[in-house]
Amino acid sequence: MELNLIKLIKSNIEALPAIVSGGSLITSIGDDCAEFSPPAGFDLLFTTDTMIEGVHFRLSYHSPVSLGRKLVSVNVSDIAAMAGSPKIALLNLEVPPRLSDSSMSFWPLLIRGIVERLREFGAILVGGDTVKAGGNRLGLTLTLVGAVKKGQAVYRKGAKIGDQIYCSGFVGESALGLKILEKRRIQLPLPVKRHLINRHLNPEPRFRLSQILADCGVTAMIDVSDGIATDLAHLCEESGVRANIIKNRIPVSRAVRIASSVLGIDAVSVSLCGGEDYELLWTIPQSRAQEMEKKVARAMHQRPYRIGWIENGKGVWLKDGEKSIDVTFKGYEH
Amino acid sequence: MELNLIKLIKSNIEALPAIVSGGSLITSIGDDCAEFSPPAGFDLLFTTDTMIEGVHFRLSYHSPVSLGRKLVSVNVSDIAAMAGSPKIALLNLEVPPRLSDSSMSFWPLLIRGIVERLREFGAILVGGDTVKAGGNRLGLTLTLVGAVKKGQAVYRKGAKIGDQIYCSGFVGESALGLKILEKRRIQLPLPVKRHLINRHLNPEPRFRLSQILADCGVTAMIDVSDGIATDLAHLCEESGVRANIIKNRIPVSRAVRIASSVLGIDAVSVSLCGGEDYELLWTIPQSRAQEMEKKVARAMHQRPYRIGWIENGKGVWLKDGEKSIDVTFKGYEH
Repeated sequence: MELNLIKLIKSNIEALPAIVSGGSLITSIGDDCAEFSPPAGFDLLFTTDTMIEGVHFRLSYHSPVSLGRKLVSVNVSDIAAMAGSPKIALLNLEVPPRLSDSSMSFWPLLIRGIVERLREFGAILVGGDTVKAGGNRLGLTLTLVGAVKKGQAVYRKGAKIGDQIYCSGFVGESALGLKILEKRRIQLPLPVKRHLINRHLNPEPRFRLSQILADCGVTAMIDVSDGIATDLAHLCEESGVRANIIKNRIPVSRAVRIASSVLGIDAVSVSLCGGEDYELLWTIPQSRAQEMEKKVARAMHQRPYRIGWIENGKGVWLKDGEKSIDVTFKGYEH
Repeated sequence: MELNLIKLIKSNIEALPAIVSGGSLITSIGDDCAEFSPPAGFDLLFTTDTMIEGVHFRLSYHSPVSLGRKLVSVNVSDIAAMAGSPKIALLNLEVPPRLSDSSMSFWPLLIRGIVERLREFGAILVGGDTVKAGGNRLGLTLTLVGAVKKGQAVYRKGAKIGDQIYCSGFVGESALGLKILEKRRIQLPLPVKRHLINRHLNPEPRFRLSQILADCGVTAMIDVSDGIATDLAHLCEESGVRANIIKNRIPVSRAVRIASSVLGIDAVSVSLCGGEDYELLWTIPQSRAQEMEKKVARAMHQRPYRIGWIENGKGVWLKDGEKSIDVTFKGYEH
């Protein structure tokens, strides 16, 4: 089984030219290690995510291709949050008995999703490991290596007092998409349903945006994987500051408002706490904010959302008129 | 749970100075990615191994420290097989419900095993992911990044016709150690039992040896993780050659002979097919073999075993007097 899967992966990779822009791949699958010559003048970034069937996804609503794509997307989002570019990836597969026949159509589709999605971001799969799963659930781990020009990485720890806080797009959509998938029979306009489900199944990491932000004097950045309240709390913790976010500035989409009202939940709350939107959150000094907004609007045809500001203190606080509510780590658990 | 485990890992890492020799670690746990500045003039090597409870190990005979150490050792062995040095590692934990209390003594012991073992090889843990397991079994993935001077990596593909084949030490010991652990009641002299079990639980990757071999003109190398018959078959496949191994030259230890006879199995067969010994197999031109043997003997106080030679053709063949038996991929499945 293992050898066949490796051959399948190898043939998928060989069908695509090695297009690692910057750096070069010297040896790949078929040796004890993959060997990569990093581009000169760059540092390397490392991130990894494990996705377990029944915990992070279900095969009943994830097609193998979209699952492979999502596995890549969530890792690319981490590289983007540091203003880097993805280069090479390693894949670990935990194969449950019911998927142990490597001739099943599931495998080429999953691998295609992974390999093609990596390619869209200029990266390639270079190695991995295939093992029997401990139970009857599929397990997927992708480790992604990116590159960033020396001195150009953006960290969580750089936010300064007085900085403005920005978010790249609507939040809470993915969490509602998941709710719809799990509950199934929810009366919603089809386009709303489709849009929210798609946001959950096919997240789009803000890679291109991150490349633009890298030149704008951004002081700190993080991606929204666990919800604004949690991810902004991480940023504040690492920076040793407090974030104030203004309730009516949180990017709540029309789709979120409609679905929240049907589901009887609070739209702002789901936007604050819902995870897996893979938008970017960043901070920037007031003096550079306007120029950044213009640059982003020009390149992305969409202005970023200014949602609050950094001050002295700690935690994440929601400002609702005169009230200030502590929402630090109000989170989302997969 | 996840946050606590991350804090635990962080405190373990911070207790040790960052001692990555060559290259420097810029940021580690606490950001979206780890950032590493690779040493100039080096290529990077990437390897990854997943170990699943009930498939690759049992907690009934692996202490948490030895489990952590083994997870590192098997990855170091892959880096050593390419003549590289380990630098940084990422750890993915799949936590089953019964281990979900991060205050259990299991976790600091496991992490200590990993962090300390990495340190012995000059490497550090820089990141990872912690998720709920799909079932009730612990899952561990370590991804290890090594460095090798440009042009100095040794591949599987370099074996040439006429090369001699060497093995660094006894094989089959780990497989017998596992058999003893699984069967429990086997009448064997205690030192033999202990030795074989230890070879399974605490493998010693041949890292120092690989550093010596790198300067000896070795043409191809692989580590013995799945047994000589399988790993040599990989080397032959990548090199496009045939290996002949001489039956009475296979390094069969006294412990293997004793245990095999008690268990009623063939000692040569277990040495040929048993996995997880993490010895090195390499090929070298006849003209350079003697000098290499001397160098190795001087540095390691032990001569390597010359077990056969490379010729035109394919597969791995066992020479027993006049007979030649095809043993290609006669393997070992975890």
